[in-house]
Amino acid sequence: MKTSPRAQDVADLANVSQSAVSRTFTPGASVSEETRRKVLAAAQKLGYRPNALARSLITRRSRIVALVMSYLENQFYPLVIEKLSQKLQKEGYHVLMFIAELDEAADGVLAEILQYQVDGIVMASAMLSPNIARGCAEVGVPVVQFNRISMLGGLARHASSSVTSDNHAGGRMAARHLVQRGYRRFGYLAGLEDSSTSIERERGFRDALHALGHDLHQREVGHYDFDLAQAATRRFFETDRVEDRVDAIFVANDHMAIAALDVLRQDLKLRVPEDVGVVGFDDVPQAAWGAYQLTTVRQQLEPMVDATVELLREQMQAELRPRDIVVPCVLVERGTA
Amino acid sequence: MKTSPRAQDVADLANVSQSAVSRTFTPGASVSEETRRKVLAAAQKLGYRPNALARSLITRRSRIVALVMSYLENQFYPLVIEKLSQKLQKEGYHVLMFIAELDEAADGVLAEILQYQVDGIVMASAMLSPNIARGCAEVGVPVVQFNRISMLGGLARHASSSVTSDNHAGGRMAARHLVQRGYRRFGYLAGLEDSSTSIERERGFRDALHALGHDLHQREVGHYDFDLAQAATRRFFETDRVEDRVDAIFVANDHMAIAALDVLRQDLKLRVPEDVGVVGFDDVPQAAWGAYQLTTVRQQLEPMVDATVELLREQMQAELRPRDIVVPCVLVERGTA
Repeated sequence: MKTSPRAQDVADLANVSQSAVSRTFTPGASVSEETRRKVLAAAQKLGYRPNALARSLITRRSRIVALVMSYLENQFYPLVIEKLSQKLQKEGYHVLMFIAELDEAADGVLAEILQYQVDGIVMASAMLSPNIARGCAEVGVPVVQFNRISMLGGLARHASSSVTSDNHAGGRMAARHLVQRGYRRFGYLAGLEDSSTSIERERGFRDALHALGHDLHQREVGHYDFDLAQAATRRFFETDRVEDRVDAIFVANDHMAIAALDVLRQDLKLRVPEDVGVVGFDDVPQAAWGAYQLTTVRQQLEPMVDATVELLREQMQAELRPRDIVVPCVLVERGTA
Repeated sequence: MKTSPRAQDVADLANVSQSAVSRTFTPGASVSEETRRKVLAAAQKLGYRPNALARSLITRRSRIVALVMSYLENQFYPLVIEKLSQKLQKEGYHVLMFIAELDEAADGVLAEILQYQVDGIVMASAMLSPNIARGCAEVGVPVVQFNRISMLGGLARHASSSVTSDNHAGGRMAARHLVQRGYRRFGYLAGLEDSSTSIERERGFRDALHALGHDLHQREVGHYDFDLAQAATRRFFETDRVEDRVDAIFVANDHMAIAALDVLRQDLKLRVPEDVGVVGFDDVPQAAWGAYQLTTVRQQLEPMVDATVELLREQMQAELRPRDIVVPCVLVERGTA
């Protein structure tokens, strides 16, 4: 077996320091154009290939960011993977996927994640437990909660940063829009009961309804699941007294809103928006599809991903204190309300 | 800073060899129950955390599989990420994401992938060029092409394995079903012209039409893109002579078929399946949504993912020769044809 050329061989040939070789192959590191040119020429001549893993043992940088997700059924999350992977790739990092069980704290995968010596962790659609928060803080690995924040209180909150939409404001937007459109009996189709997204969206929805002199008429739970959302939608219309039925439903995400629209139109033969108004949350691409044309509260994915990368970067580099970034939502008016 | 305990410390305390400690922490490695128990007890006592990166330098196993994708717009690919991540995770591997530019060979990311010393590469919705195939073969990293095979011929084909659906048979199923349903003027809405998926599905469709005494009436190209597929759908109906129009369209994937259904129903006010029949390919979850109820050729994702992991495993371990696995398709009859 031929011995692979080493960084020192490249440095010798290029007549530069070994650190200059290392910096040339470290994305984002500072190195002069002339030095970079000399190093690349020497590296090519020798067939030198820097070893990211060996480098990580020296620099304590693996250039890997763990992304923990519990499920991808909701069409919002594939977009998160794509945008986050692209953005991190441009910065010289790559995303390592960890799938946690839905509804469970992701503690089981923590030991595994830390074995990979990741430079950071993004938790999306997965719960950050105090255990994980503590474990990561101990080894100095920054954690960013994406789209969810831990409702478990003190410790987890202090040990990690978060990026969320302004879910409370989004809920208020949905309420104001439905009231303005003349709807009067309002339903809320909740997601997972312990998720900050569903809790905050409901709180904003109720607060704005009250401020406008209205109340929440009925509440059902779909657990962010397509089938459970369809069952929940039917429960809104079980009563025979039409005057007791909701005439508008705010649904905690688009995935469930699309499930609800199918039930309203196909099973219950109701007209949307004439008989029932529907507002979703996320603005996934499918919300704009011709058969749905869902009015929804958009989560601004690009700014959320940018903020996530920014938080990772500042904590990796400067060990700044964790902080929470809240990105504004936008109401997107289409055909369902 | 406290010194971290090392494998040797654990071995000493457990009174076993260092190799036994290593095997205990290597997923899939053979170690007796008693040894494992002793090692885990000692590791817990010392707070020992195995370092996957350092281990990879010794074992030449990073326990990382690179997944190269060019886009996730098609709802089939998020499922691939989820299922492949889950399956590999169970085997002690994790997926590292690489996003390549659409329509370009993924050569740009090869050097980066190899820097991570990955144990294997899965190329999905990204082209394997002869360059990549050669580069990976040189360093002994197995490559599995998922859902696409390189049309570039000899070299790339010999250096990598592949897992595909039986696309030709799928195209034949679509033709037989549409003929059986009484349709007579057949259109094909193609995907990317250089993709093996679109080419094989079309070939199968044409072959079965011919065998049944029919011809392809019109062919349009949607490049696997939602908007381009909508424009292509309109082109099928530009002629004013109804007898010149197709009455059935086989669409190269569900993502484009859903785009086509929106145009047929909303813009052209055509009834599906009465005026036009539509058959897609993939069976993404959205194909079953109430508003679409798309008849489609299902790609069997779970067997495809299982085959991918199997190919990676056999080539990592035994350096078997690359081979191609073809998974059968299934016609799923719903409401559009």
